[in-house]
Amino acid sequence: MEFWFTEKQTDKFGITAKVKRTLHTEKTDYQQLDVVETEEFGNMLLLDGMVMTTERDEFVYHEMVTHVPLFTHPEPKSVLVVGGGDGGAIREVLKHPSVEKATLVEIDGKVIEYSKKYLPTIAGALDDERVEVKVGDGFMHIAESENEYDVIMVDSTEPVGPAVKLFEKGFYEGIYKALKEDGIFVAQTDNPWFQSELVKNVYSDVKEIFQVTSLYTCNIPTYPSGLWTFTIGSKKHDPLNVPEERFHHIETKYYTKELHTAAFALPKFVTDLIK
Amino acid sequence: MEFWFTEKQTDKFGITAKVKRTLHTEKTDYQQLDVVETEEFGNMLLLDGMVMTTERDEFVYHEMVTHVPLFTHPEPKSVLVVGGGDGGAIREVLKHPSVEKATLVEIDGKVIEYSKKYLPTIAGALDDERVEVKVGDGFMHIAESENEYDVIMVDSTEPVGPAVKLFEKGFYEGIYKALKEDGIFVAQTDNPWFQSELVKNVYSDVKEIFQVTSLYTCNIPTYPSGLWTFTIGSKKHDPLNVPEERFHHIETKYYTKELHTAAFALPKFVTDLIK
Repeated sequence: MEFWFTEKQTDKFGITAKVKRTLHTEKTDYQQLDVVETEEFGNMLLLDGMVMTTERDEFVYHEMVTHVPLFTHPEPKSVLVVGGGDGGAIREVLKHPSVEKATLVEIDGKVIEYSKKYLPTIAGALDDERVEVKVGDGFMHIAESENEYDVIMVDSTEPVGPAVKLFEKGFYEGIYKALKEDGIFVAQTDNPWFQSELVKNVYSDVKEIFQVTSLYTCNIPTYPSGLWTFTIGSKKHDPLNVPEERFHHIETKYYTKELHTAAFALPKFVTDLIK
Repeated sequence: MEFWFTEKQTDKFGITAKVKRTLHTEKTDYQQLDVVETEEFGNMLLLDGMVMTTERDEFVYHEMVTHVPLFTHPEPKSVLVVGGGDGGAIREVLKHPSVEKATLVEIDGKVIEYSKKYLPTIAGALDDERVEVKVGDGFMHIAESENEYDVIMVDSTEPVGPAVKLFEKGFYEGIYKALKEDGIFVAQTDNPWFQSELVKNVYSDVKEIFQVTSLYTCNIPTYPSGLWTFTIGSKKHDPLNVPEERFHHIETKYYTKELHTAAFALPKFVTDLIK
């Protein structure tokens, strides 16, 4: 007998993956959490039935959410990740030697617990001494922070369940306040094929708050449409104007300094969306 | 009752789409041909169970296979499309006013017939007076051509069934001969996530024959992994060194002159693959 997991990415389209076995399934205080072992993508974390990360393709998301803002900042010392309980973004943040402290604020402690257990190559970095892990509400953490971070990364789920507040303009205003005077913010902002309104609205909100706003993309096979967007809001530094010498060497599988720039060249229908 | 079509893109992973109805199904002399009406992507053409094109996302493939080589050539007059019976590549070729003649050589006349019937926005250009449509073997057509084309585009299926010969080195040698002295060739070369050997082998073969070889990508939601590659072989003109004034305006939904260049910035694991 074969078992196949299917995620309906829209009401009318989805992906399906052959599953060896279910490693964990639980209704946490915040969401449905499942970890399955797939044949094509290795262990896969799902929240509310949506693929969050897989062992095989996680490097794309985690490298691209991290290295674009961190190489844009001249010397990121204090970095905050909101969400991101799987630890992948933190792992990438720690590749930057200037980073003195990386704080993770994840609302659902179970995500951290089961990522450590079943996704150790992703979550292992959470035990690093430069990392502080807080189980709590990222929205509240931002509201209470002021002039504190060089880079803030919002590594959230889709805007359903606990993440709804993380797509509101008031949250981005809080992030502006929580950043230092030359701080940079990045958020994952879904895909332009099925969630064009979301991409458009976040971009418009961020643009009203930050001095520099831009959108970049990457390819993630297990995410809807395979084309993922990130929105950057920056007080000063322009991700498209990074001095050559700032690109120190780090080990990556997706990110390169050439791709750093190329990722901002958008398909015309995406440019039209955020005009 | 709901109907869902599923394509297993590998033995272990696939996509699934809600289907309103089947418009046509037939075993032709060459392959299984199906046209279905999907809710998310409109009418969809399938050959041997694999998605070839859909009304909603076809523009990405057709613009990117066409405009990158055609803008690289200073004055493409004579263009050949091998395969591509849906007509989408031809439609894009005709956007270039220098083109005097566009020849399509498609082995399966049924693909042309049912594309005209069910994908008229894609196949309509096949009736243009600058177009010659030949139902025949592209491999043989290439073998019989010499110093004839400015640009040759191989718009084939995967290397199964009738397209196997179109992925052989001897075919690329024939293309070299069929091109004029400053001709350019492009082929769709699948995706680097599930077909890394194919990407690598084609690149290596083309590089042994052509003076300039390069690989570029685009995002196609209904194709495996969402990341598609094209391999260019050029006798003289470099797609990464196109004079600014050559980019005349054309109507597109994906291609832009910025993306023309950015599409060659590859994820590191893809660069490593073709080293």
